[in-house]
Parts: sequence; C-alpha cells; structure tokens
Amino acid sequence: MKLEEKTKNSKAIFQGRLLDVRLDQVILPNGAISTREWINHPGAVCCIPILPDGKIGLIKQFRYAIKQEVIELPAGKIDEGETGLMCVKRELEEEIGYRANKIQFLTDIHPAIGFANEKISIYLVEDLTKTKSKLDEDEFLVIMPTNLNIAIDMVWNGKITDVKTIIGLLWAEKILSQRN
Amino acid sequence: MKLEEKTKNSKAIFQGRLLDVRLDQVILPNGAISTREWINHPGAVCCIPILPDGKIGLIKQFRYAIKQEVIELPAGKIDEGETGLMCVKRELEEEIGYRANKIQFLTDIHPAIGFANEKISIYLVEDLTKTKSKLDEDEFLVIMPTNLNIAIDMVWNGKITDVKTIIGLLWAEKILSQRN
Repeated sequence: MKLEEKTKNSKAIFQGRLLDVRLDQVILPNGAISTREWINHPGAVCCIPILPDGKIGLIKQFRYAIKQEVIELPAGKIDEGETGLMCVKRELEEEIGYRANKIQFLTDIHPAIGFANEKISIYLVEDLTKTKSKLDEDEFLVIMPTNLNIAIDMVWNGKITDVKTIIGLLWAEKILSQRN
Repeated sequence: MKLEEKTKNSKAIFQGRLLDVRLDQVILPNGAISTREWINHPGAVCCIPILPDGKIGLIKQFRYAIKQEVIELPAGKIDEGETGLMCVKRELEEEIGYRANKIQFLTDIHPAIGFANEKISIYLVEDLTKTKSKLDEDEFLVIMPTNLNIAIDMVWNGKITDVKTIIGLLWAEKILSQRN
C-alpha cells in the first residue's frame, strides 16, 4: 500500500520568535487533495548529565504551554549553524553550568509527528567539570540532582511526564546497567 | 525560587482545521514581560492493543510533518465531549478494527512542553474482538502485528522514533513482565 503524501504547495502562516507555522496542500495516496498544517522546527537536543557525585542533573522549569512546573533533562533547540554536539555542550553549560568531557549519542526521537517536524537527539554526558550557568534572560530553572533509581521511580509513578526526559532516563538506565 | 509565568493577555493567531496557535504576553518570575507562542491542543490518547494472537497491533502511517513512514501505536485526538476512554475505543475500532473488552490506563505524557499543551493518555487494551476498521477519508495506514520483544528491539535500535510508541511499548513490557 502506498502511503506517501506529496506536497502540492506550502504557505507560511505565522513566523514568530519560536513558531514557524505552515499550511500545505498535499496529494494523498489516492490522488485526492487535502491540507496539512504543521510546525517547522529546527530540531533539538536533550542530554542526561551524570554529575560528579553520580546523580542525574535534572532541572525543574515552569512550562508555559502546560502551565506547570516540569521536571526535565537539560535540553534546547539547535541554533543555526550548530551541530547536535555543539548544542549539547552549549545547553549543558548554559542550563546547569558544566562542561562535558565524554559525550555519547544515544538515539533520535520525534515528539510530535502529528503536527511538527521536531527531532530531538539524546546524548549521555559524563566526566563533567563545573563552570558557570548562564541562562537566557527569560529562562528560570532550578537544578535537581537526583539518583537515577529515584528518577526512574518518578517515570513509572507518573511524576515525570515529559517525553524526552522519560526516554532519556530509560536509555540511561539501560546503558549504565550494561556497564556493570 | 519562584518559577511561575503569569498570563497577561492571550491572542489567537491562527485557527486551522488542526492547529490553534496562540501568542500570549506573560509576566516572568522577575516581573519582566515576555511573549510565549504555543499550540492549544485538545489532548490525545494512545493504546497498546494486545491482539488475539498475542502480538502488538502496531500501525505504519506516512506522517507529513516529518515526511516519513512511521511505525506507531494506534492513537488519536480527543473529540469534543469525549472522555479518554471513549476516544481509545473509537480510535481502536477506526484504525485497526477491534473492540476492547479490557482497558487499563497506564500513564499521561506531555510530548511537546516547549510549544504545546498536548497531553497523551496511554492505555493497555486487551481481550479484543474483531470488528471493521473505518478510517477517516484522508487517513491511510497499514496494520503491522508485531511480537512485543521485536517491537522493543525496534525501540532500542532506533527504528521506532515516535515518543508515544516508545513509551507505550516500554510500559507494556514492564506491565506484562510483572504478570508472569
């Protein structure tokens, strides 16, 4: 069965500071025409920082879209001209104030395939050296160093609901248990 | 540390067939004013169908936003007036043509906290009876019954990248292994 939808034309609907909203006409597999609304996203990275004391460098932020404080792994959007690796290093230093000497790519995930092309690359970062955090001027967060087993409990009891954080922590658990 | 951002005002930027794009002015924790762009989403459900032969009822769809065929669990947006449970039953029948006699809520996840208020509730559905699938007229998909252990391999080797599917499968693995 052919599943592909082909682009007939694409229109920029709104280009904000964050969101790039598109409205495309598409040709469906059966030849019919339909529309697809979607968000064009530059991609992002997320990392699991293993702090010098062995804890995971989780953070807590208020997320306006869901109007809640959220427990997360450090993450951020890729800037123009940046590689994923450069972005991990930058976000790690900006958000929690560490430099990583060992960075391992784990996996790519697609968080919102129904309406966005965002891809998040997840990295394990280790052998950290303390520097100084430098948050964006409209960014506020609290660092929450947490034992991995406690963080994993927070996944299974529903206290952690952010998808990149759930998947990053479960990957870290798998990778780190294989080392022992 | 106070993290909350308060809404000063909210404006509808674009209301399409799918996307409801908002631009809000907010008061930051330090009293400064900033803007937040976000997508207002009705919420969604996702289910892990255990087919009569024990396989998982995965599906394959073309996802226009990422221009790829994606392996997924059945899922869909909650219609107005619907509960999560009603939505699971409807989507299961529409997408793969089964009725579930046993439905267990597992967890809620937030896929895109940076720019959308979407919440996806994940359910394990079992004791299925065959009916008939009735897809929306612009929906095309292939059903891919898959052994759970093979689906889990596809999570760890990066063949499955959709977040609700990764998390749903890992939850199913955990729940089902606890029963044995």
